[in-house]
Amino acid sequence: MGCDGMKYTEISSKDNDIVKLVRALQTSAKARKTENLFVLEGLRICTDAYDNGIKFKYLLATKKIIEKSSSDIKKFYGVSEKIYIVSENVFEKMSDTVNPQGIIAVAIIPENTVNIDSKGKYIALENLNDPSNLGAVSRTAEALGVSGIIISRGSCDPYSPKSLRASMGTLLRMPLYFTDDITDFADKCGITTFACVVDSCAEDIKSCEFKGGCALIIGNEANGITDETKKKSKHLITIRMSGKAESLNAAAAASIAMWEMMK
Amino acid sequence: MGCDGMKYTEISSKDNDIVKLVRALQTSAKARKTENLFVLEGLRICTDAYDNGIKFKYLLATKKIIEKSSSDIKKFYGVSEKIYIVSENVFEKMSDTVNPQGIIAVAIIPENTVNIDSKGKYIALENLNDPSNLGAVSRTAEALGVSGIIISRGSCDPYSPKSLRASMGTLLRMPLYFTDDITDFADKCGITTFACVVDSCAEDIKSCEFKGGCALIIGNEANGITDETKKKSKHLITIRMSGKAESLNAAAAASIAMWEMMK
Repeated sequence: MGCDGMKYTEISSKDNDIVKLVRALQTSAKARKTENLFVLEGLRICTDAYDNGIKFKYLLATKKIIEKSSSDIKKFYGVSEKIYIVSENVFEKMSDTVNPQGIIAVAIIPENTVNIDSKGKYIALENLNDPSNLGAVSRTAEALGVSGIIISRGSCDPYSPKSLRASMGTLLRMPLYFTDDITDFADKCGITTFACVVDSCAEDIKSCEFKGGCALIIGNEANGITDETKKKSKHLITIRMSGKAESLNAAAAASIAMWEMMK
Repeated sequence: MGCDGMKYTEISSKDNDIVKLVRALQTSAKARKTENLFVLEGLRICTDAYDNGIKFKYLLATKKIIEKSSSDIKKFYGVSEKIYIVSENVFEKMSDTVNPQGIIAVAIIPENTVNIDSKGKYIALENLNDPSNLGAVSRTAEALGVSGIIISRGSCDPYSPKSLRASMGTLLRMPLYFTDDITDFADKCGITTFACVVDSCAEDIKSCEFKGGCALIIGNEANGITDETKKKSKHLITIRMSGKAESLNAAAAASIAMWEMMK
Protein backbone atom coordinates (compact mmCIF):
# COMPACT_ATOMS: atom_id res chain seq x y z
CA MET A 1 0.00 0.00 0.00
CA GLY A 2 1.50 3.38 -0.97
CA CYS A 3 1.39 6.57 1.06
CA ASP A 4 -1.79 7.72 -0.71
CA GLY A 5 -3.74 4.49 -0.20
CA MET A 6 -3.08 3.15 -3.70
CA LYS A 7 -1.85 -0.38 -4.39
CA TYR A 8 1.47 -0.44 -6.21
CA THR A 9 3.76 -3.18 -7.39
CA GLU A 10 7.42 -2.33 -7.08
CA ILE A 11 10.00 -2.78 -9.84
CA SER A 12 13.65 -2.66 -8.89
CA SER A 13 15.18 -5.00 -11.47
CA LYS A 14 16.25 -3.97 -14.95
CA ASP A 15 15.32 -7.44 -16.16
CA ASN A 16 11.67 -7.05 -15.21
CA ASP A 17 9.32 -7.96 -18.08
CA ILE A 18 7.49 -4.64 -17.93
CA VAL A 19 10.80 -2.79 -18.28
CA LYS A 20 11.64 -4.92 -21.29
CA LEU A 21 8.19 -4.25 -22.75
CA VAL A 22 8.66 -0.49 -22.40
CA ARG A 23 12.01 -0.65 -24.20
CA ALA A 24 10.49 -2.73 -26.99
CA LEU A 25 7.54 -0.37 -27.39
CA GLN A 26 9.85 2.65 -27.52
CA THR A 27 12.08 1.24 -30.21
CA SER A 28 9.95 -1.08 -32.33
CA ALA A 29 6.96 -0.15 -34.47
CA LYS A 30 6.31 -3.88 -34.82
CA ALA A 31 6.10 -4.34 -31.05
CA ARG A 32 3.64 -1.44 -30.83
CA LYS A 33 1.51 -3.01 -33.53
CA THR A 34 1.58 -6.52 -32.04
CA GLU A 35 0.84 -5.36 -28.51
CA ASN A 36 -1.48 -2.49 -29.54
CA LEU A 37 0.38 -0.43 -26.96
CA PHE A 38 2.66 2.61 -27.00
CA VAL A 39 4.72 4.57 -24.52
CA LEU A 40 4.10 8.06 -23.17
CA GLU A 41 6.86 9.66 -21.15
CA GLY A 42 6.54 12.76 -19.00
CA LEU A 43 3.70 14.42 -17.09
CA ARG A 44 2.77 16.74 -19.92
CA ILE A 45 2.11 14.12 -22.58
CA CYS A 46 0.50 11.70 -20.09
CA THR A 47 -1.91 14.51 -19.19
CA ASP A 48 -2.56 15.22 -22.88
CA ALA A 49 -3.39 11.55 -23.38
CA TYR A 50 -5.56 11.39 -20.26
CA ASP A 51 -7.46 14.51 -21.34
CA ASN A 52 -8.07 12.86 -24.68
CA GLY A 53 -9.60 9.71 -23.13
CA ILE A 54 -6.64 7.41 -23.76
CA LYS A 55 -6.43 4.42 -21.39
CA PHE A 56 -3.25 3.22 -19.72
CA LYS A 57 -2.38 -0.43 -19.33
CA TYR A 58 0.49 0.34 -17.01
CA LEU A 59 1.49 3.45 -15.15
CA LEU A 60 5.14 3.49 -14.09
CA ALA A 61 6.44 6.17 -11.75
CA THR A 62 9.28 6.82 -9.36
CA LYS A 63 8.56 7.50 -5.67
CA LYS A 64 9.98 10.98 -6.15
CA ILE A 65 7.49 12.10 -8.80
CA ILE A 66 4.53 10.57 -6.94
CA GLU A 67 5.46 12.56 -3.84
CA LYS A 68 6.11 15.71 -5.86
CA SER A 69 3.15 15.65 -8.25
CA SER A 70 0.67 13.40 -6.53
CA SER A 71 -2.44 15.35 -7.52
CA ASP A 72 -1.48 15.22 -11.20
CA ILE A 73 -0.64 11.55 -11.05
CA LYS A 74 -3.69 10.50 -9.00
CA LYS A 75 -5.89 11.46 -11.97
CA PHE A 76 -4.23 8.72 -13.96
CA TYR A 77 -5.01 5.96 -11.47
CA GLY A 78 -8.60 5.65 -12.64
CA VAL A 79 -7.55 5.02 -16.25
CA SER A 80 -4.61 2.71 -15.42
CA GLU A 81 -5.02 -1.06 -15.20
CA LYS A 82 -1.93 -1.51 -13.06
CA ILE A 83 0.45 0.84 -11.29
CA TYR A 84 4.15 0.26 -10.70
CA ILE A 85 6.64 2.10 -8.56
CA VAL A 86 10.01 1.99 -10.26
CA SER A 87 13.37 2.61 -8.62
CA GLU A 88 15.36 5.58 -9.96
CA ASN A 89 18.09 3.52 -11.59
CA VAL A 90 15.65 1.21 -13.38
CA PHE A 91 13.66 4.23 -14.54
CA GLU A 92 16.77 5.74 -16.06
CA LYS A 93 17.32 2.57 -18.02
CA MET A 94 13.76 2.71 -19.38
CA SER A 95 13.66 6.40 -20.10
CA ASP A 96 13.94 7.76 -23.61
CA THR A 97 14.91 11.27 -22.42
CA VAL A 98 18.07 12.91 -21.11
CA ASN A 99 16.50 14.18 -17.89
CA PRO A 100 13.79 11.68 -16.97
CA GLN A 101 10.87 13.14 -15.00
CA GLY A 102 10.03 9.74 -13.54
CA ILE A 103 6.73 8.92 -15.22
CA ILE A 104 5.88 6.62 -18.09
CA ALA A 105 2.50 5.32 -19.20
CA VAL A 106 2.13 2.23 -21.35
CA ALA A 107 -0.99 3.30 -23.19
CA ILE A 108 -3.49 1.48 -25.36
CA ILE A 109 -3.48 2.67 -28.98
CA PRO A 110 -6.85 4.41 -29.30
CA GLU A 111 -9.38 3.34 -31.88
CA ASN A 112 -10.40 6.19 -34.10
CA THR A 113 -14.12 6.64 -33.65
CA VAL A 114 -14.43 9.72 -35.84
CA ASN A 115 -15.73 8.91 -39.32
CA ILE A 116 -14.40 10.75 -42.33
CA ASP A 117 -16.53 13.81 -43.01
CA SER A 118 -17.26 13.93 -46.73
CA LYS A 119 -16.99 17.72 -46.47
CA GLY A 120 -13.87 17.71 -44.32
CA LYS A 121 -10.36 18.82 -45.23
CA TYR A 122 -7.70 16.18 -44.67
CA ILE A 123 -3.96 15.90 -44.98
CA ALA A 124 -2.80 12.54 -46.32
CA LEU A 125 0.75 11.26 -45.94
CA GLU A 126 2.08 8.68 -48.37
CA ASN A 127 5.19 6.89 -47.06
CA LEU A 128 6.30 9.86 -44.98
CA ASN A 129 9.47 8.59 -43.38
CA ASP A 130 10.64 11.07 -40.78
CA PRO A 131 8.87 11.19 -37.38
CA SER A 132 9.89 14.84 -36.96
CA ASN A 133 8.08 15.67 -40.19
CA LEU A 134 5.02 13.67 -39.11
CA GLY A 135 4.98 15.52 -35.79
CA ALA A 136 5.35 18.92 -37.45
CA VAL A 137 2.59 18.11 -39.96
CA SER A 138 0.28 17.13 -37.11
CA ARG A 139 0.96 20.40 -35.24
CA THR A 140 0.24 22.47 -38.33
CA ALA A 141 -2.83 20.38 -39.16
CA GLU A 142 -4.37 20.94 -35.74
CA ALA A 143 -3.43 24.62 -35.68
CA LEU A 144 -5.03 25.28 -39.06
CA GLY A 145 -8.19 23.30 -38.29
CA VAL A 146 -7.56 20.34 -40.62
CA SER A 147 -10.13 17.57 -39.96
CA GLY A 148 -7.72 14.64 -39.64
CA ILE A 149 -4.63 12.87 -40.93
CA ILE A 150 -4.75 9.97 -43.39
CA ILE A 151 -1.56 7.91 -43.03
CA SER A 152 -0.39 5.28 -45.52
CA ARG A 153 0.89 2.09 -43.91
CA GLY A 154 4.31 2.72 -45.43
CA SER A 155 4.69 5.87 -43.33
CA CYS A 156 6.49 6.14 -40.02
CA ASP A 157 4.55 5.32 -36.88
CA PRO A 158 2.63 8.17 -35.18
CA TYR A 159 2.94 6.30 -31.88
CA SER A 160 6.74 6.31 -31.78
CA PRO A 161 8.30 8.49 -29.04
CA LYS A 162 9.89 10.71 -31.69
CA SER A 163 6.65 11.33 -33.59
CA LEU A 164 4.70 12.03 -30.40
CA ARG A 165 7.35 14.40 -29.09
CA ALA A 166 7.64 16.30 -32.37
CA SER A 167 3.84 16.59 -32.51
CA MET A 168 3.69 18.20 -29.03
CA GLY A 169 0.92 15.74 -28.23
CA THR A 170 -1.26 16.79 -31.18
CA LEU A 171 -1.08 13.25 -32.64
CA LEU A 172 -3.09 12.13 -29.60
CA ARG A 173 -5.85 14.59 -30.45
CA MET A 174 -6.04 14.52 -34.24
CA PRO A 175 -8.26 11.85 -35.83
CA LEU A 176 -5.89 9.43 -37.61
CA TYR A 177 -6.90 7.12 -40.49
CA PHE A 178 -4.62 4.30 -41.65
CA THR A 179 -4.80 2.88 -45.14
CA ASP A 180 -2.78 0.90 -47.68
CA ASP A 181 -3.99 3.08 -50.53
CA ILE A 182 -4.76 6.74 -50.00
CA THR A 183 -6.60 7.40 -53.26
CA ASP A 184 -8.83 4.31 -52.89
CA PHE A 185 -9.57 5.30 -49.31
CA ALA A 186 -10.42 8.88 -50.28
CA ASP A 187 -12.60 7.74 -53.19
CA LYS A 188 -14.58 5.46 -50.88
CA CYS A 189 -15.07 8.34 -48.45
CA GLY A 190 -16.22 10.63 -51.26
CA ILE A 191 -13.43 13.18 -50.87
CA THR A 192 -11.36 14.67 -53.68
CA THR A 193 -7.62 13.94 -53.87
CA PHE A 194 -4.97 16.62 -54.48
CA ALA A 195 -1.48 15.17 -54.90
CA CYS A 196 1.22 17.71 -54.11
CA VAL A 197 4.05 17.15 -56.62
CA VAL A 198 7.21 18.81 -57.89
CA ASP A 199 6.16 19.24 -61.51
CA SER A 200 5.93 22.49 -63.41
CA CYS A 201 3.03 21.08 -65.47
CA ALA A 202 0.88 20.56 -62.37
CA GLU A 203 -1.73 23.10 -61.31
CA ASP A 204 -0.36 26.05 -59.29
CA ILE A 205 -1.64 25.65 -55.73
CA LYS A 206 -2.39 29.38 -55.64
CA SER A 207 -5.10 29.03 -58.27
CA CYS A 208 -6.44 25.75 -56.91
CA GLU A 209 -9.93 25.60 -55.40
CA PHE A 210 -10.34 23.24 -52.48
CA LYS A 211 -14.11 22.74 -52.58
CA GLY A 212 -15.99 20.19 -50.48
CA GLY A 213 -14.20 17.20 -48.97
CA CYS A 214 -10.48 17.19 -49.81
CA ALA A 215 -7.45 15.00 -49.16
CA LEU A 216 -4.19 16.81 -49.77
CA ILE A 217 -1.48 14.20 -50.38
CA ILE A 218 2.17 14.71 -49.41
CA GLY A 219 4.71 12.07 -50.40
CA ASN A 220 7.96 10.57 -49.19
CA GLU A 221 10.88 12.88 -48.33
CA ALA A 222 13.22 11.43 -50.97
CA ASN A 223 10.88 10.06 -53.62
CA GLY A 224 7.73 12.17 -53.42
CA ILE A 225 4.37 10.65 -54.30
CA THR A 226 4.28 7.22 -55.98
CA ASP A 227 3.46 7.03 -59.69
CA GLU A 228 0.34 5.02 -58.95
CA THR A 229 -1.03 7.64 -56.57
CA LYS A 230 -0.17 10.42 -59.01
CA LYS A 231 -2.13 8.59 -61.68
CA LYS A 232 -5.12 7.95 -59.45
CA SER A 233 -5.30 11.42 -57.89
CA LYS A 234 -7.99 13.77 -59.15
CA HIS A 235 -5.67 16.80 -59.09
CA LEU A 236 -1.92 17.25 -59.35
CA ILE A 237 -0.94 20.48 -57.66
CA THR A 238 2.41 22.15 -57.07
CA ILE A 239 4.09 24.88 -55.07
CA ARG A 240 6.01 26.88 -57.66
CA MET A 241 9.69 27.19 -56.83
CA SER A 242 12.45 29.53 -57.86
CA GLY A 243 16.18 29.08 -57.35
CA LYS A 244 18.10 25.86 -57.51
CA ALA A 245 15.96 24.14 -54.88
CA GLU A 246 14.75 20.77 -56.06
CA SER A 247 12.04 20.42 -53.48
CA LEU A 248 10.81 21.69 -50.16
CA ASN A 249 11.17 19.86 -46.88
CA ALA A 250 8.07 17.61 -46.70
CA ALA A 251 6.68 19.26 -43.55
CA ALA A 252 7.27 22.73 -45.02
CA ALA A 253 5.46 21.75 -48.24
CA ALA A 254 2.62 20.25 -46.19
CA SER A 255 2.36 23.43 -44.10
CA ILE A 256 2.10 25.71 -47.12
CA ALA A 257 -0.34 23.37 -48.87
CA MET A 258 -2.58 23.02 -45.79
CA TRP A 259 -2.47 26.79 -45.37
CA GLU A 260 -3.79 27.21 -48.92
CA MET A 261 -6.40 24.49 -48.45
CA MET A 262 -7.75 25.95 -45.21
CA LYS A 263 -7.93 29.63 -45.98
CA MET B 1 52.60 11.43 -56.66
CA GLY B 2 49.13 9.95 -57.17
CA CYS B 3 47.95 7.95 -60.16
CA ASP B 4 46.51 11.08 -61.79
CA GLY B 5 49.64 13.20 -61.36
CA MET B 6 48.40 15.04 -58.28
CA LYS B 7 50.50 15.39 -55.13
CA TYR B 8 48.86 13.83 -52.09
CA THR B 9 49.86 13.44 -48.49
CA GLU B 10 48.73 10.19 -46.94
CA ILE B 11 46.94 9.91 -43.60
CA SER B 12 46.76 6.52 -41.98
CA SER B 13 46.73 7.41 -38.29
CA LYS B 14 43.63 8.31 -36.31
CA ASP B 15 45.77 10.64 -34.22
CA ASN B 16 46.69 12.82 -37.18
CA ASP B 17 46.10 16.52 -36.49
CA ILE B 18 43.93 16.97 -39.59
CA VAL B 19 41.69 14.11 -38.45
CA LYS B 20 41.35 15.76 -35.06
CA LEU B 21 40.58 19.09 -36.71
CA VAL B 22 37.80 17.52 -38.79
CA ARG B 23 36.22 15.99 -35.68
CA ALA B 24 36.41 19.32 -33.85
CA LEU B 25 34.87 21.21 -36.78
CA GLN B 26 32.04 18.69 -37.04
CA THR B 27 31.08 18.87 -33.39
CA SER B 28 31.97 22.34 -32.17
CA ALA B 29 30.51 25.66 -33.33
CA LYS B 30 33.29 27.37 -31.39
CA ALA B 31 35.99 25.50 -33.33
CA ARG B 32 34.31 26.50 -36.61
CA LYS B 33 34.29 30.12 -35.50
CA THR B 34 37.88 30.13 -34.28
CA GLU B 35 39.27 28.38 -37.36
CA ASN B 36 36.85 30.00 -39.83
CA LEU B 37 36.48 26.53 -41.32
CA PHE B 38 33.69 23.98 -41.65
CA VAL B 39 33.28 20.43 -42.90
CA LEU B 40 31.52 19.21 -46.02
CA GLU B 41 30.99 15.49 -46.37
CA GLY B 42 29.94 13.67 -49.52
CA LEU B 43 30.32 14.34 -53.25
CA ARG B 44 27.00 16.06 -53.59
CA ILE B 45 27.52 18.79 -51.00
CA CYS B 46 31.20 19.26 -51.97
CA THR B 47 30.00 19.86 -55.54
CA ASP B 48 27.32 22.29 -54.28
CA ALA B 49 30.02 24.20 -52.42
CA TYR B 50 32.43 24.14 -55.38
CA ASP B 51 29.68 25.39 -57.71
CA ASN B 52 29.05 28.21 -55.28
CA GLY B 53 32.70 29.36 -55.24
CA ILE B 54 33.58 28.03 -51.81
CA LYS B 55 37.31 27.33 -51.28
CA PHE B 56 38.68 24.22 -49.60
CA LYS B 57 41.61 24.31 -47.19
CA TYR B 58 41.91 20.55 -47.19
CA LEU B 59 40.42 17.87 -49.37
CA LEU B 60 40.40 14.42 -47.78
CA ALA B 61 39.49 11.37 -49.82
CA THR B 62 39.93 7.63 -49.81
CA LYS B 63 41.76 5.90 -52.66
CA LYS B 64 38.52 4.14 -53.54
CA ILE B 65 36.50 7.28 -54.23
CA ILE B 66 39.33 8.93 -56.16
CA GLU B 67 39.49 5.91 -58.47
CA LYS B 68 35.71 5.70 -58.75
CA SER B 69 34.83 9.39 -59.18
CA SER B 70 38.08 10.92 -60.33
CA SER B 71 36.51 13.38 -62.79
CA ASP B 72 34.20 14.75 -60.10
CA ILE B 73 37.00 15.00 -57.58
CA LYS B 74 39.59 16.51 -59.96
CA LYS B 75 37.44 19.63 -60.20
CA PHE B 76 38.07 20.21 -56.51
CA TYR B 77 41.88 20.14 -56.81
CA GLY B 78 42.04 23.68 -58.13
CA VAL B 79 40.16 25.09 -55.12
CA SER B 80 41.93 22.94 -52.49
CA GLU B 81 45.06 24.16 -50.71
CA LYS B 82 46.15 20.65 -49.77
CA ILE B 83 44.97 17.17 -50.65
CA TYR B 84 45.12 14.11 -48.41
CA ILE B 85 44.54 10.46 -49.13
CA VAL B 86 42.99 8.87 -46.08
CA SER B 87 42.89 5.16 -45.31
CA GLU B 88 39.42 3.58 -45.09
CA ASN B 89 39.52 2.95 -41.35
CA VAL B 90 40.68 6.48 -40.51
CA PHE B 91 38.00 7.89 -42.81
CA GLU B 92 35.35 5.93 -40.96
CA LYS B 93 36.48 7.49 -37.72
CA MET B 94 36.22 10.98 -39.20
CA SER B 95 32.93 10.48 -40.97
CA ASP B 96 29.71 11.90 -39.63
CA THR B 97 27.52 9.55 -41.69
CA VAL B 98 26.47 5.93 -41.46
CA ASN B 99 27.72 4.96 -44.92
CA PRO B 100 30.72 7.19 -45.63
CA GLN B 101 31.30 7.93 -49.32
CA GLY B 102 34.97 8.66 -48.69
CA ILE B 103 35.20 12.38 -49.31
CA ILE B 104 35.40 15.31 -46.91
CA ALA B 105 36.34 18.90 -47.61
CA VAL B 106 37.49 21.24 -44.87
CA ALA B 107 36.10 24.43 -46.35
CA ILE B 108 36.66 28.10 -45.63
CA ILE B 109 33.54 29.83 -44.31
CA PRO B 110 32.61 32.16 -47.16
CA GLU B 111 32.33 35.88 -46.66
CA ASN B 112 28.96 37.19 -47.68
CA THR B 113 29.55 39.69 -50.44
CA VAL B 114 25.90 40.38 -51.18
CA ASN B 115 24.66 43.58 -49.59
CA ILE B 116 21.17 43.80 -48.19
CA ASP B 117 18.78 45.01 -50.84
CA SER B 118 16.56 47.67 -49.28
CA LYS B 119 13.72 46.32 -51.44
CA GLY B 120 14.48 42.66 -50.72
CA LYS B 121 12.42 40.17 -48.73
CA TYR B 122 14.35 38.49 -45.91
CA ILE B 123 13.69 35.84 -43.32
CA ALA B 124 15.28 36.62 -39.95
CA LEU B 125 15.86 33.99 -37.28
CA GLU B 126 16.15 35.04 -33.67
CA ASN B 127 17.77 32.36 -31.49
CA LEU B 128 16.53 29.52 -33.65
CA ASN B 129 17.91 26.48 -31.89
CA ASP B 130 17.34 23.43 -34.04
CA PRO B 131 19.63 22.81 -37.05
CA SER B 132 16.86 20.81 -38.76
CA ASN B 133 14.60 23.85 -38.55
CA LEU B 134 17.34 26.13 -39.85
CA GLY B 135 17.92 23.75 -42.76
CA ALA B 136 14.21 23.52 -43.58
CA VAL B 137 13.84 27.32 -43.40
CA SER B 138 16.74 27.72 -45.81
CA ARG B 139 15.20 25.26 -48.29
CA THR B 140 11.86 27.04 -48.21
CA ALA B 141 13.54 30.45 -48.42
CA GLU B 142 15.44 29.52 -51.56
CA ALA B 143 12.46 27.79 -53.14
CA LEU B 144 10.19 30.78 -52.61
CA GLY B 145 12.76 33.32 -53.80
CA VAL B 146 13.52 34.96 -50.44
CA SER B 147 16.53 37.31 -50.80
CA GLY B 148 18.57 36.05 -47.82
CA ILE B 149 18.61 34.85 -44.22
CA ILE B 150 19.40 37.12 -41.29
CA ILE B 151 20.64 35.01 -38.38
CA SER B 152 20.96 36.24 -34.79
CA ARG B 153 24.18 35.17 -33.08
CA GLY B 154 22.14 33.23 -30.51
CA SER B 155 20.90 30.89 -33.26
CA CYS B 156 22.37 27.52 -34.14
CA ASP B 157 25.27 27.43 -36.58
CA PRO B 158 24.43 27.19 -40.31
CA TYR B 159 27.83 25.56 -40.88
CA SER B 160 27.19 22.55 -38.64
CA PRO B 161 26.88 19.20 -40.45
CA LYS B 162 23.24 18.88 -39.30
CA SER B 163 22.20 22.31 -40.58
CA LEU B 164 23.94 21.81 -43.92
CA ARG B 165 22.42 18.37 -44.39
CA ALA B 166 18.90 19.53 -43.50
CA SER B 167 19.28 22.47 -45.88
CA MET B 168 20.18 20.17 -48.80
CA GLY B 169 23.08 22.51 -49.51
CA THR B 170 20.86 25.60 -49.82
CA LEU B 171 22.70 27.24 -46.88
CA LEU B 172 25.76 27.36 -49.14
CA ARG B 173 23.82 29.33 -51.75
CA MET B 174 21.63 31.68 -49.73
CA PRO B 175 23.14 35.01 -48.66
CA LEU B 176 23.52 34.86 -44.86
CA TYR B 177 23.75 37.89 -42.56
CA PHE B 178 24.82 37.56 -38.93
CA THR B 179 23.85 40.07 -36.29
CA ASP B 180 23.47 40.50 -32.54
CA ASP B 181 20.28 42.47 -32.95
CA ILE B 182 17.90 41.78 -35.81
CA THR B 183 15.74 44.91 -35.50
CA ASP B 184 18.76 47.27 -35.29
CA PHE B 185 20.30 45.52 -38.28
CA ALA B 186 17.08 45.76 -40.31
CA ASP B 187 16.62 49.42 -39.36
CA LYS B 188 20.12 50.26 -40.53
CA CYS B 189 19.44 48.47 -43.81
CA GLY B 190 16.18 50.37 -44.26
CA ILE B 191 13.93 47.29 -44.26
CA THR B 192 10.70 46.88 -42.30
CA THR B 193 10.49 44.29 -39.51
CA PHE B 194 7.56 41.89 -39.10
CA ALA B 195 7.80 39.82 -35.92
CA CYS B 196 5.81 36.58 -36.18
CA VAL B 197 4.22 35.98 -32.76
CA VAL B 198 1.58 33.82 -31.10
CA ASP B 199 -0.75 36.59 -29.99
CA SER B 200 -4.38 36.98 -30.95
CA CYS B 201 -4.00 40.78 -30.77
CA ALA B 202 -1.34 40.80 -33.46
CA GLU B 203 -2.19 41.54 -37.08
CA ASP B 204 -3.49 38.55 -39.05
CA ILE B 205 -0.81 37.61 -41.56
CA LYS B 206 -3.51 37.13 -44.20
CA SER B 207 -4.33 40.82 -44.20
CA CYS B 208 -0.74 41.97 -43.88
CA GLU B 209 0.93 43.83 -46.74
CA PHE B 210 4.60 43.13 -47.23
CA LYS B 211 5.60 46.23 -49.17
CA GLY B 212 9.19 47.17 -50.02
CA GLY B 213 12.09 45.71 -48.06
CA CYS B 214 10.93 43.31 -45.33
CA ALA B 215 12.48 41.20 -42.61
CA LEU B 216 10.12 38.53 -41.34
CA ILE B 217 11.29 37.49 -37.86
CA ILE B 218 10.83 33.96 -36.49
CA GLY B 219 11.80 33.27 -32.88
CA ASN B 220 13.12 30.46 -30.73
CA GLU B 221 11.32 27.08 -30.77
CA ALA B 222 10.41 27.16 -27.07
CA ASN B 223 10.29 30.87 -26.22
CA GLY B 224 9.34 32.64 -29.43
CA ILE B 225 10.61 36.15 -30.13
CA THR B 226 12.27 38.09 -27.29
CA ASP B 227 10.31 40.89 -25.66
CA GLU B 228 12.87 43.44 -26.78
CA THR B 229 12.55 42.43 -30.42
CA LYS B 230 8.76 42.41 -30.14
CA LYS B 231 8.90 45.96 -28.81
CA LYS B 232 11.29 47.16 -31.48
CA SER B 233 9.58 45.47 -34.45
CA LYS B 234 7.50 47.65 -36.73
CA HIS B 235 4.76 45.02 -37.09
CA LEU B 236 3.57 42.15 -34.92
CA ILE B 237 1.91 39.55 -37.12
CA THR B 238 0.37 36.17 -36.36
CA ILE B 239 -0.82 32.99 -38.02
CA ARG B 240 -4.31 32.45 -36.57
CA MET B 241 -4.72 29.04 -34.97
CA SER B 242 -7.66 26.87 -34.07
CA GLY B 243 -7.64 23.80 -31.86
CA LYS B 244 -5.61 23.27 -28.74
CA ALA B 245 -2.29 23.87 -30.49
CA GLU B 246 -0.18 26.39 -28.66
CA SER B 247 2.13 27.10 -31.52
CA LEU B 248 3.39 25.83 -34.83
CA ASN B 249 6.75 24.18 -35.37
CA ALA B 250 9.16 27.06 -36.08
CA ALA B 251 10.03 25.88 -39.60
CA ALA B 252 6.33 25.35 -40.41
CA ALA B 253 5.47 28.85 -39.18
CA ALA B 254 8.40 30.28 -41.16
CA SER B 255 7.24 28.43 -44.28
CA ILE B 256 3.69 29.76 -44.09
CA ALA B 257 4.88 33.28 -43.26
CA MET B 258 7.43 33.34 -46.12
CA TRP B 259 4.74 32.02 -48.45
CA GLU B 260 2.50 34.95 -47.54
CA MET B 261 5.37 37.45 -47.80
CA MET B 262 6.44 36.24 -51.25
CA LYS B 263 3.14 35.81 -53.03
